[in-house]
Amino acid sequence: MLILMKLDATRRQIDDVKTRVSELGFTPHEIPGAQRMAIGITGNKAKVTPDHFLTLPGVTDVISVSKPFKLVGRDFKPDDTVVDVGGVTFGGTEIQIIAGPCSVESREQIMEAADVVRASGARLLRGGAFKPRSSPYAFQGLKLEGLEYLKEAAERTGLKVVTEVKDTETLDAVAEYSDLLQIGARNMYNFSLLERVGDSGKPVLLKRGFSSTVEELLMAAEYIVSRGNYNVILCERGIRTFETATRNTLDLNAVPVLKKLSHLPVIVDPSHGTGAWDLVPPMSMAALAAGADGLMLEVHAHPERALSDGYQSLAPDTYRSLMLRVKKLEPVLGRTIMVN
Amino acid sequence: MLILMKLDATRRQIDDVKTRVSELGFTPHEIPGAQRMAIGITGNKAKVTPDHFLTLPGVTDVISVSKPFKLVGRDFKPDDTVVDVGGVTFGGTEIQIIAGPCSVESREQIMEAADVVRASGARLLRGGAFKPRSSPYAFQGLKLEGLEYLKEAAERTGLKVVTEVKDTETLDAVAEYSDLLQIGARNMYNFSLLERVGDSGKPVLLKRGFSSTVEELLMAAEYIVSRGNYNVILCERGIRTFETATRNTLDLNAVPVLKKLSHLPVIVDPSHGTGAWDLVPPMSMAALAAGADGLMLEVHAHPERALSDGYQSLAPDTYRSLMLRVKKLEPVLGRTIMVN
Amino acid sequence: MLILMKLDATRRQIDDVKTRVSELGFTPHEIPGAQRMAIGITGNKAKVTPDHFLTLPGVTDVISVSKPFKLVGRDFKPDDTVVDVGGVTFGGTEIQIIAGPCSVESREQIMEAADVVRASGARLLRGGAFKPRSSPYAFQGLKLEGLEYLKEAAERTGLKVVTEVKDTETLDAVAEYSDLLQIGARNMYNFSLLERVGDSGKPVLLKRGFSSTVEELLMAAEYIVSRGNYNVILCERGIRTFETATRNTLDLNAVPVLKKLSHLPVIVDPSHGTGAWDLVPPMSMAALAAGADGLMLEVHAHPERALSDGYQSLAPDTYRSLMLRVKKLEPVLGRTIMVN
Amino acid sequence: MLILMKLDATRRQIDDVKTRVSELGFTPHEIPGAQRMAIGITGNKAKVTPDHFLTLPGVTDVISVSKPFKLVGRDFKPDDTVVDVGGVTFGGTEIQIIAGPCSVESREQIMEAADVVRASGARLLRGGAFKPRSSPYAFQGLKLEGLEYLKEAAERTGLKVVTEVKDTETLDAVAEYSDLLQIGARNMYNFSLLERVGDSGKPVLLKRGFSSTVEELLMAAEYIVSRGNYNVILCERGIRTFETATRNTLDLNAVPVLKKLSHLPVIVDPSHGTGAWDLVPPMSMAALAAGADGLMLEVHAHPERALSDGYQSLAPDTYRSLMLRVKKLEPVLGRTIMVN
Repeated sequence: MLILMKLDATRRQIDDVKTRVSELGFTPHEIPGAQRMAIGITGNKAKVTPDHFLTLPGVTDVISVSKPFKLVGRDFKPDDTVVDVGGVTFGGTEIQIIAGPCSVESREQIMEAADVVRASGARLLRGGAFKPRSSPYAFQGLKLEGLEYLKEAAERTGLKVVTEVKDTETLDAVAEYSDLLQIGARNMYNFSLLERVGDSGKPVLLKRGFSSTVEELLMAAEYIVSRGNYNVILCERGIRTFETATRNTLDLNAVPVLKKLSHLPVIVDPSHGTGAWDLVPPMSMAALAAGADGLMLEVHAHPERALSDGYQSLAPDTYRSLMLRVKKLEPVLGRTIMVN
Repeated sequence: MLILMKLDATRRQIDDVKTRVSELGFTPHEIPGAQRMAIGITGNKAKVTPDHFLTLPGVTDVISVSKPFKLVGRDFKPDDTVVDVGGVTFGGTEIQIIAGPCSVESREQIMEAADVVRASGARLLRGGAFKPRSSPYAFQGLKLEGLEYLKEAAERTGLKVVTEVKDTETLDAVAEYSDLLQIGARNMYNFSLLERVGDSGKPVLLKRGFSSTVEELLMAAEYIVSRGNYNVILCERGIRTFETATRNTLDLNAVPVLKKLSHLPVIVDPSHGTGAWDLVPPMSMAALAAGADGLMLEVHAHPERALSDGYQSLAPDTYRSLMLRVKKLEPVLGRTIMVN
Repeated sequence: MLILMKLDATRRQIDDVKTRVSELGFTPHEIPGAQRMAIGITGNKAKVTPDHFLTLPGVTDVISVSKPFKLVGRDFKPDDTVVDVGGVTFGGTEIQIIAGPCSVESREQIMEAADVVRASGARLLRGGAFKPRSSPYAFQGLKLEGLEYLKEAAERTGLKVVTEVKDTETLDAVAEYSDLLQIGARNMYNFSLLERVGDSGKPVLLKRGFSSTVEELLMAAEYIVSRGNYNVILCERGIRTFETATRNTLDLNAVPVLKKLSHLPVIVDPSHGTGAWDLVPPMSMAALAAGADGLMLEVHAHPERALSDGYQSLAPDTYRSLMLRVKKLEPVLGRTIMVN
Repeated sequence: MLILMKLDATRRQIDDVKTRVSELGFTPHEIPGAQRMAIGITGNKAKVTPDHFLTLPGVTDVISVSKPFKLVGRDFKPDDTVVDVGGVTFGGTEIQIIAGPCSVESREQIMEAADVVRASGARLLRGGAFKPRSSPYAFQGLKLEGLEYLKEAAERTGLKVVTEVKDTETLDAVAEYSDLLQIGARNMYNFSLLERVGDSGKPVLLKRGFSSTVEELLMAAEYIVSRGNYNVILCERGIRTFETATRNTLDLNAVPVLKKLSHLPVIVDPSHGTGAWDLVPPMSMAALAAGADGLMLEVHAHPERALSDGYQSLAPDTYRSLMLRVKKLEPVLGRTIMVN
C-alpha cells in the first residue's frame, strides 16, 4: 500500500501518518519525490484498508498494490486445478459441454432434452428447478418435482446433473439430486450461500455476477475455497453495459484474464451472455478459441414452446451443427472434445 | 406487446403468429404498415414474454409496452405511501435522517455515535452487526453482540434501529432487535430473502443494487409487497459506472423517476453513493432538493479509527454543520426536518 | 509512479528496472516489502507512462500517482476562476441561467423563445445553428441563417448568445455571432477543435462527453487552457450507463468533484442529462444544491412543435415556475440569482 | 412507430394524437387494448421522432420500431460488401491482417516494424503520424515526416498503408500517403470528418467509439456511405465498462451482431481492445472464430522502447507465433489467410 501526501503536507503530518502506520503493526517507508512525499507500507496482512489513512491530515490518496485474493490465485498455486464432477473433468485437456433447457418444465420435456444433448457431445445436463426470477409473478420452477425429473433424465442418458441452488433453505435438496451445484449470477454476492456450498464439499459452478469485476468473482470463489472446497469452476455469462443490441455483453476477455490470475477452470455461457440463439454459435467458437475449458448452452427440443428463455435456446439441429464445428477446433486448441 | 414482422414475412407466417397469440389466450391485432406488418397483442396477463414469439418464422422483433410491476406502481395506487417505523414516518411532510457508523465495533463506539447523531436530528440509528463483505478475511461484524449494543444505544437515546439483514438464517434475530430491516444492495436480487422479509410484516429499507435498474428495484419491492407488506422504503445508494472519481455514481435521477413510477417513499445514501466524506454534504443537499424523503448517513465519532468505511463517514462536526444546512431547505421544499 | 515487481523478481531484474528509470532521467527508489519489492519513481515530468516499464522482465504492475492535468487544477491555482461572458460572470456569487431551444428553427421561434427566457431570469440565450446529429438524414440546423436569427433575438432582448461550434470550418462564423462558444459532448475529444477554440481567446462552454471521466473532461479543458485561454466553463450533461429509465444519467457527483479538483466554473444541463422535461425541475434544484454555478436549460415556447428534443424542453410556464423555485435557494446557497 | 396512451386517456386526447399524426403526413392506426389504447403510425420517412408525440396530453410512451440506418443495412443490400484496398480485399474469403506500431517514431523504427509484420502475413502496415492524445503534453506524432517514413516503409515491403485521419485540416495529406483512411474511436461522432472522408472516395476503416452502440457505429458508417462511398470497413476495438482488469472490454458480440445487421466487412483490434499484449493472442483467435474478416494488431520490434502503447504491442516472436496459430483456423473457418 502506498500513501500519497498532499503537495503542501507538513513534516508533522508526514510523521503522524508514519506513526499511525506503525501503530497498526506495519512498517512505513518514506519515498521522497520531486513534488510530494509518498509513504510505502510493508507487511500487509489484509487487515489494513485505504480508509485507515485517507482521513488523516495531509493525505491525498492511498493506493492498494496487492491482490485481495489468495487461495484462488496463481501466485499461490501455479498449476491448473482440475475439477472432477463424477468422472467428468474440467480444466484438463478435455473440453466439456453442459447443455439443456433453461427450466425443467415437465418430465417429457427434460427427457427429450436429455436425449438431444446426449446425442451431440454434452456430458452434463442442465435445467433449473428452483428459479430466481425478477418478477414474483413469473414461473418459479417445478422445484422438487423438477429435481426428480432432471435426475431421472440424467441417469437414463448417463449424464451428470447441474442445477442452480437458489438459497440455503433448498441447498440440501439440490445437493442430493445434482453433481455440480450452480451458483447463479444474482447470488454471486450471497456470501452466506457461498459459505454453505463451500462447506458442502460438492463441486460448484460459480457464475460471474452481471456487474461483477473479475476480481470480485475471484473473491466469491475465495469464499468457497476458504472453506476447504477447491472444486470450483468459474463461468463467464455476460456483463451489463450500455449496449442494448445484446441482452448482456459476453465478456470473453475474462477468460484469459481469469486464466492468468487463477488456477481454477473457466467455462462460458453464451446463451445468457448474448440472449439470442443466433449469436450463440459464433460466440461459442470464440469462447473456446479464447481458452475456455467448456461451454454451458441452453438447448430446448422446441424453443418456441419454452416457458423461459426460448429465444436464447438452441434448437436440436442448430446445437448439433455447432457441436460439429466445435469438434473442428481440436487441432487448433490441442484439446479434445467428445461429440458422438 | 407488439410483434414486428420482417419486411418479407409471408401471409402464412403472419397468420401463424396470430394463431399462436390466440392459442396463448390473447387477442391479435394486425397493424399494416407502409413497409411491414406489426401485430399488437391485447389482454396481457403478465404470463406472455417476447420469447414466445421471437422464435416464430417471419418475426423480427417483439416490443413490451406495459410495466412489469403492479402493486408498487402509481397507476395502481396514486397517493403517496407513508411508512411508519415506530412512530417515525417516511414519505410524509417530515424529512427523516438515518445516521450512524458503518459497523457496530464496540459498545462504547455505538453509544458515542448514538449521542452524536441524536444531537443533530437523526431519528434512526444505523449500524451493521452482520456484515456482507467482499472478502472472507474482512471483519464480518460483531453479530448478535453487535445487535445488543445497537439496541441498547438506540433505547438510551430514543432512536429507532436500522440494521442490515444478511440472510434468512439471521433474519429472526435481526428482526427482534430492529425497527427497520435493511436489505443491502448485494441482496436486492436475493428473492428468497425478499419473500421472508415480506412475510415478516416489519418495515423494510430496500437498497438499490449497484447495477440494478430502477425497474428492477421496483420489481424487488414488488416481491415484498406481494406478500402483503406495504411498509417498504426505497433507497438510492449509487450505481456502478465507468467513472472512477467516485466509489459509486450516486444516481439522483432515480429519486424523481421512482417518485413518478411508484407511491413508495424514497431516501438516499450519499455515503455509499460517493464513498468520500467531503462529497456527502453537497450530495445530501442535492438529494433533498431532488425530492428525497430522507437521508441515510454514515457518521462516526472518530472516522480515522473506523474498522470499515472510515473515509466516507462524517465526523461529528461535519455532520452537525450539514444538518444545519439541511434545515435551511425547509421553506424551499415545503417540508420539515427536526434538527435539535 | 510506482513500479511493482513480481513476487519472484530477481535482483538482476530489479536492477534492470532501476537502470531503465535512470536512463529516462528519473530517480528510482527501492521500497522493500514483506512480500515483494516496489520501486518508486520521482521527478515525474509527464513524459513517462506505465508502458515504459510494464514490458520489463519481473514487473507485475505500474501505478500512476500524479494527476495528468496541471493548469486547470486547484493545486496550480487555488482560487476560483470567474469567467466573464460579455459582463455576465460564471463562477462568482451569482448563479447564471442559460436557456433557449435545442435548435434555431425559424426567426419567429427564436424571437418568441428569447422573450420567454428573458422574462424569467436567463442572461444567455442558447440555440443550435450547426447541429451534430447521429443521423445524416436528420435536421442539421439552419446554419448561418440560424446564427443571424439567434443574434438578432439576443440583441433585441439584451441576452448573450451561446451556440455550438460543430467543426473548425465553421468556427470563425460561429465565433462572430456568439459570446460563448459551446463545445458539445461529442466533440470533447476533438483535440484539433479544442486547440482552435483555445487560440480564439473567446469564452468556451465545454460539455462533458457522455462517456468521459471527470479526469478526461479536465484534460480536454487543459487543451484549451494550455493555449492561453482560461475562459473555460465546464458543463455536466449526463453520462451513459446501463440505466434506461432516463436518456442519460445526470452525474451530479461531478459537480463537487470538479470543484475539488479544478478552479473552473461548473454548470449543469439537466435537459440533456435526463431527457425528460418533468425530471428537469427536480434535477435543476439538485444541481444548484450540489454547488453548480449555473444551469443550461432547454426551453421552447411550444415544445410539442419542436423539431428536436421537444420532450426534454420546458414549456414557458414550467420554466417560469422552476425559476421561482430556484430563486428560493438564494439563502440556502448564499448566492444570488436574477429572476425578473 | 407506436404511440402508447395513458390508462386514463380520453377519447379527445386520442383523437388529438391521431390528428397530429395525420398533420405530419403519416397514417394513424388505433390498436385498442384490454387496458389502454395504442396508436400505430405507418409511412415512416425518418423525419418523425418520439419527441413529436411524447409531449401531447394523454401520451405515456412512444416506441420506435424501425432501424435508423438504411444504406449500410442488410435489409437494403443482402450480400456481403467486399472492400478493395489496393488489391487487398476485406470481406471476402481471405482474412486480412493489419499490423504495425502505435506511432511512427522514426524512419528506422517503422522500417524495422514493416519487415517484422511483412514476414508473418500482414498485408497492411499501420502506424500513427497525426496522433489524437488525451493530454496536450503527450507525444503528438511525427506528422508529415511520419507519413513519409510510413509510405517509404510500406512501399519497400509491398504493404498497403493504414493511418489515422485526425482532422479535416490534415485529411488531404493523409489521403495522399495512405491506402486506407482510419477514423479513430474518438472521431466516430465527428460528423464533419465523416462527411469529408465520404467525399474522398477512399477506403475507410471506421473504428467504433469506446462508448458507442453498434447502432451508432452503423449510423456513423451511414454518414460515409450516404456520400456515395461504400468502401467502409468497421472495426471493433473495445468498449468502456465498469471492468478495470482490461483497459477496455473488447466486445466480440459486436462481430456477429454487425454481420447480421450490415453487409460491411468487420475487423477487430484486440490490442486497444484489451490493452495488454498477453491478452492479444487469445482474443485474436476468438475474434476470428466469432466471424471477423481480419485483425488490426499493434506490433513493435522493441515494445519496451515504444513511445506509446508499448504494453499492448506484440514483440516480433509473439506476433509470429500468433500468426502460425491463426493459420490453423483456416479449415475451421473455411477461409484463407496468408502467412509467409
